[in-house]
Amino acid sequence: MREFVVVGHTTPTSDFSLDDLPGAGRVDVLCRCVNSAFVLSHSVREDVRLHLVLRGEEEATVRFEGDELRYLNPDERSTAALIREALDEREEVVGHQEVESTPGVHVSKKGFEEVVEETSRRGEVIELHENGEPLVDAETPEHGVFVLSDDEDFTDEERGVLEEVADASRSVGLEVLHADHSMTVVHNWLDTEGFERY
Amino acid sequence: MREFVVVGHTTPTSDFSLDDLPGAGRVDVLCRCVNSAFVLSHSVREDVRLHLVLRGEEEATVRFEGDELRYLNPDERSTAALIREALDEREEVVGHQEVESTPGVHVSKKGFEEVVEETSRRGEVIELHENGEPLVDAETPEHGVFVLSDDEDFTDEERGVLEEVADASRSVGLEVLHADHSMTVVHNWLDTEGFERY
Repeated sequence: MREFVVVGHTTPTSDFSLDDLPGAGRVDVLCRCVNSAFVLSHSVREDVRLHLVLRGEEEATVRFEGDELRYLNPDERSTAALIREALDEREEVVGHQEVESTPGVHVSKKGFEEVVEETSRRGEVIELHENGEPLVDAETPEHGVFVLSDDEDFTDEERGVLEEVADASRSVGLEVLHADHSMTVVHNWLDTEGFERY
Repeated sequence: MREFVVVGHTTPTSDFSLDDLPGAGRVDVLCRCVNSAFVLSHSVREDVRLHLVLRGEEEATVRFEGDELRYLNPDERSTAALIREALDEREEVVGHQEVESTPGVHVSKKGFEEVVEETSRRGEVIELHENGEPLVDAETPEHGVFVLSDDEDFTDEERGVLEEVADASRSVGLEVLHADHSMTVVHNWLDTEGFERY
C-alpha cells in the first residue's frame, strides 16, 4: 500500500468558494494532490490512502481511501467540492471518531502528530523534502507513507514530529517541485520497479 | 530545451465557461498540462515550450514560452482563462502568423502536422504512449520534443504524422498515466540525470 500525508497550512476548515480555490488557503494545491494520489488514465489507484491535514483554522483531517472512492473526478473544482462536503461534516465528529461525507472520504479532528503516528504503525514513514537524500537511491518500501507539505515549509512543531517518527527524508530531484508533482514522481518510482525488464 | 506537444481532441476553439472545465472539451486536462510543463515551487521552468493543439472545432494551437510567461498561476481556472483569452484572439490571426494574447502565450491556426514538423526541425521527437518502449532505457535528449494526447488516443491521421516524424515511442511506466502526470515524469527523468551522484 502507498499512503500520503499532505499538510495544508492555510486551508480553512470552514466554508470556501469554489470560484477562487487559491484564495481559499491554497486548497487548489490539495486538490491537485488528490488527483496525483489516485487518478490514472480511465481508473483510480485503489491501493492508495491520502490524508489531507488542514491547519488553517481548527485542525481537520480528510482521509481518502482509493478502494472506496466513488465520485472523484480529476479536475480541481469537483475535488474541492468533495473537500468542502467533508469539512461541512466536521462539526458532527465526536472525539476521535470519523464521519464519512461521501464514499471513500472521511473527516476527523485529528492533527498532524496523531495522523503521522498512526501511519507509522503501518508503514515506513518517508518525509519528502528538497533537502533530503535522493529518493532514487532508496529501497522501495513495501508500505510507504510519504509526508509532504503544501506551498509552505513544515513548521518547527511538524519538523519535531517528523524527527521522532520519520524513517528517512528524501528528495525527488534537483528541482524543487510542488507537492502534487512530487507525489506523481513517487508513484512512478514505485510503478517502474523492474520496468526496464518489462 | 524541453518541448511538449499536447493534443486536445475535443477542446472548443470558441468560448467556454470557467465553471465547468471538464465540460469544455476537457480543457481541465490541458490546464494541468500547462501546470506540469512550467510550474516549480516558487518559480517557472524557463527553458520549456508547450504547444496545445486544439482540435475540437477549428484547428488552433496555443504556444506557451517559459521564458516569456508573466501571468501563469498553478490553478486550473486561471490557466483556463489564459487559454480562453488566447482563443479569443484566434480570429485576428492572418494565415500562418501568430498573435500574442498575454505575455508568453501565442495563438495560431496551425494544425497537428504543422506543429510536429516544426518541432522536429529543432529536436528529437518522442511520442509518449502506453505501448512505447520504457522511457527509462532511453538516452536523455539534448532538445527533446515530447508528444502526448489528452484523455483520447491519437487519431489515425495523427498516428500517421508521428510515424513519419517521431524518432521514438516511449512509455513512462507500467501504469497508464494522464498526460500531465506523464509530463511530470519526463521532467523528473531529465532533472535527475546524475542525481545519484549529487
